[in-house]
This record gives sequence, structure tokens and C-alpha cells, in this order.
Amino acid sequence: MDEIIFGKNSVMEALLSNEREINKILISKNIHSDSKLNKIKELAKSRGVVFQFVAKEKFLPYAEFNHQGIIAQISPVKYEDLDEFLEKPHKESSIVILDGIEDSHNLGAIIRTCVCAGVSGIIIPSRRNVQVNAIVEKTSAGAINHIPIIKVNSLVSAVQALKNSDWWVVATDASAKDNYYDVNYNDMNFAIIMGAEHAGVSKSLLKLADFTVKIPMLKDFNSLNVSNALAAIIFETVRQKLTRKI
Amino acid sequence: MDEIIFGKNSVMEALLSNEREINKILISKNIHSDSKLNKIKELAKSRGVVFQFVAKEKFLPYAEFNHQGIIAQISPVKYEDLDEFLEKPHKESSIVILDGIEDSHNLGAIIRTCVCAGVSGIIIPSRRNVQVNAIVEKTSAGAINHIPIIKVNSLVSAVQALKNSDWWVVATDASAKDNYYDVNYNDMNFAIIMGAEHAGVSKSLLKLADFTVKIPMLKDFNSLNVSNALAAIIFETVRQKLTRKI
Repeated sequence: MDEIIFGKNSVMEALLSNEREINKILISKNIHSDSKLNKIKELAKSRGVVFQFVAKEKFLPYAEFNHQGIIAQISPVKYEDLDEFLEKPHKESSIVILDGIEDSHNLGAIIRTCVCAGVSGIIIPSRRNVQVNAIVEKTSAGAINHIPIIKVNSLVSAVQALKNSDWWVVATDASAKDNYYDVNYNDMNFAIIMGAEHAGVSKSLLKLADFTVKIPMLKDFNSLNVSNALAAIIFETVRQKLTRKI
Repeated sequence: MDEIIFGKNSVMEALLSNEREINKILISKNIHSDSKLNKIKELAKSRGVVFQFVAKEKFLPYAEFNHQGIIAQISPVKYEDLDEFLEKPHKESSIVILDGIEDSHNLGAIIRTCVCAGVSGIIIPSRRNVQVNAIVEKTSAGAINHIPIIKVNSLVSAVQALKNSDWWVVATDASAKDNYYDVNYNDMNFAIIMGAEHAGVSKSLLKLADFTVKIPMLKDFNSLNVSNALAAIIFETVRQKLTRKI
């Protein structure tokens, strides 16, 4: 089960100390605003921590705790900062960007695949994407501790930062002309953007991509699990790296 | 939820009519043997249907039904027969053999990937492998209806039958010398054997394989989710097919 911090004082302390990685703060719609709550919202904003107002039923699983209508969900990993990641030396490195992955099992499987394939980092957005939680930790089979996971407030800004640092950006799109294996992944640092299973990669990110690629389907059934789609692409980049041919 | 048939008479009728596909029959250890039960066991044996004696607690979810200590779990698909499958014309076809996959979500994802990659069939054993159940149906996103799923009592016999019909057999093994992309998958019918996540492919099957291959790991972390491992391999065979080069 996810680690949770309960109550106004504890959540505020967690924000002040900045030592715990907070995935999200949930605030009951039924509690009244007061100076402490305002301070929490202010601190959360300045730290880039997402907070959400939710129905009081969301707190039912925590009824035995004195939660005062506010809890903070703690991440099992410390997220890394994109700027720090980009400052490190990179040579023929790869990074995977997840745009709207909602299923914890998929995120766990993706992290395992990325570690096995020697990917240097994974970028997730702080909103509209599952965060690293206890189920992700379990389905990753411990892989979450072997790769930097970078959380950003804006994927668009993150992709622009990558491009400014000379990374090439590959986005997956079912309507792309090129197949994923038509790109030469050698001799460059590259990022691969994977979209949500139904919506795909956001238009704003597709526009920024240097390449858009698809996985060719041999049957009229276009519905690959996102972790399986990533596995096909990422191990093609490994094949190219190890054989030096596309 | 899985479709279930309850009680001695109904289970016997299902076996006699042979119109419903039974994944497994569960019999409570606490019920006494009688002529009906003996008849059920006899019919199950002759139909190749697995039956298992289980603790009466297994029947707790069905307390409201008059189950008499015996239930049959029904498959949402009709399994196909291997002989019939092999009698069809095959040209550069592929088949995936699953040896000990226990997780329903993995089986669902594997079926989706196989359909997208134009695989001709999937072979599962009747024991020590998850059967096609309601969770598999859901996680397959409907793919279970787009590919023959072949259930066999012995994977060894199935692999021998494939070899006798001139199919080439590729087994995955983490200690293999060759990488999966070193094999030329063009111009032949081939089967790919995927093993359980921890135990791998059984020794008896590895011995029968024409090729054993591994997925190279770029980090000292060898723990790929089985559906992701299959996706990497199966889409390499698609790449070879579409580009005609290895």
C-alpha cells in the first residue's frame, strides 16, 4: 500500500522539509479554508506538487486515521530533476517520455523494460499520468531503483529543453508514415514519446518531434498494450546499437 | 467474472454435450465419491479436461449457488485443435507457445501483441498455465476473438507435431549464445516458445528447439515482463518480414 501522510500539520511539515517526495495532495471538498490550508496550497504550488479537491468519500479508506480531510501520497522513489539530468554527460543515450499513461501495471512494466534496455531516464508529467506508487514499485520488480525517474510540470517544456540540449525526439503515432525501424538511432541522444493507449501522443508534442513513427500492424487490429509497444521500439534501438546497422 | 457451471448434473451435461469449452473442473475434497462424480471424472479424462480437488474454502465465493462441491470454469473462447490448425495451409506463418505463464494480464497483453503482429496461433498447455478467463478477455481488448488459441495436454508432443510439419522452433533462454535478431525468420514457418518469468522455458522443450535465443540486456538487470519480451521478439520478425532483411 502507498505511504500516506495524514492531517494538516504533517502534510505541511512534509512540504516544508522537502525530504519526502509527494505524488499528490488530496483535500476534501468539505473542509473549510483556514490559514494552515492556505499555507499548504501555497507551499505545494511553489514546490510544483499537485493538489486536488476530492469528495469526502475518497477518505473512507483512511477513516481510522485523524486525516482532517487532507492527505499526501508519498512516492517510493525520489524523482530526479530534468536540468540535473541534462547536465550529466550523455553519449548515445536514450530517454523515454510518457504522455498520459494511466495504468500502474503498464508503468511498472515500462520501467522494467527501460532498465533492461539501458535507457538513461524516464520522464513523466505531474498531471494526467500515473505517478510512481506502490503498485508501480511492485510490478517494476524493483526496477524503479535502477533508473532516474524525472517528473515535470510541462512535457512541452521538457521536450524543448531536450531539443535545446541536442537530443533528437521521436514520437509514436499510429498515422505516421515511417516505421519505427526506419530511424537510425545510432550516433545520437534520443527521446521516445509514448502516448496514452487511446488518445496517443498529444498534438503539442507531436509538433515538436523530429521523427514520428508507427509500429506496423499485420492485422486490422491496432491495439497494442503501451508497454509492449515500447518494448518493440526500445529493443529495436538496442539491436541497432549492438549491430551498428539499421 | 468468469462463467461458471454449478453442480454435478450441470457439469456432467456440459461434458456430455461438449459444446461449452471447460477450462477446469474444481471438486471439493469434502464431497463423497458417487457414481455421478465417477462419471464426471471419466468424461473429463476422455475430453482432456483438467479436474482438481480443492479445499472447500475455494467454494466460498459461490455460497449462494447450489454447487454441491463441484464447479466447471467455462472459457470465453472455443479452443482450437492443433491437428486442425496444422492441416491448414501455412506460409511464413508464426505461432507462439506459452510455457507456464501464470498472470492473466500478461496473457491478455500477449494475445493483443500476437494479433497486431499477425501471428497465426497461440498454444497454451492445459496445466501450469493460465487459461483464457474473463480477465484475459478484458485485458486482451477483444483480441481473443481474432486468433486461434490452441490448448494442448502436452507441450512436448505439440512441439514435436510442429517439427514433423516442418515448422522451425525458436526457444527463448536467458543463457543462449545468440540474440533473437540473429535468426532469419523469413522463408519459414516458425514457433516461438516463451517461458515463465522466473523458471523460463522447460528443459524438455529447450532440447527440442532448433534455435535458442536471448534478448540482450544493456544493464545488469535481467527481468523483462514476459509480454514485453515477446513484443520485442515478435516485432523483430515483423521487421524482417517487411524489410526482407535481418
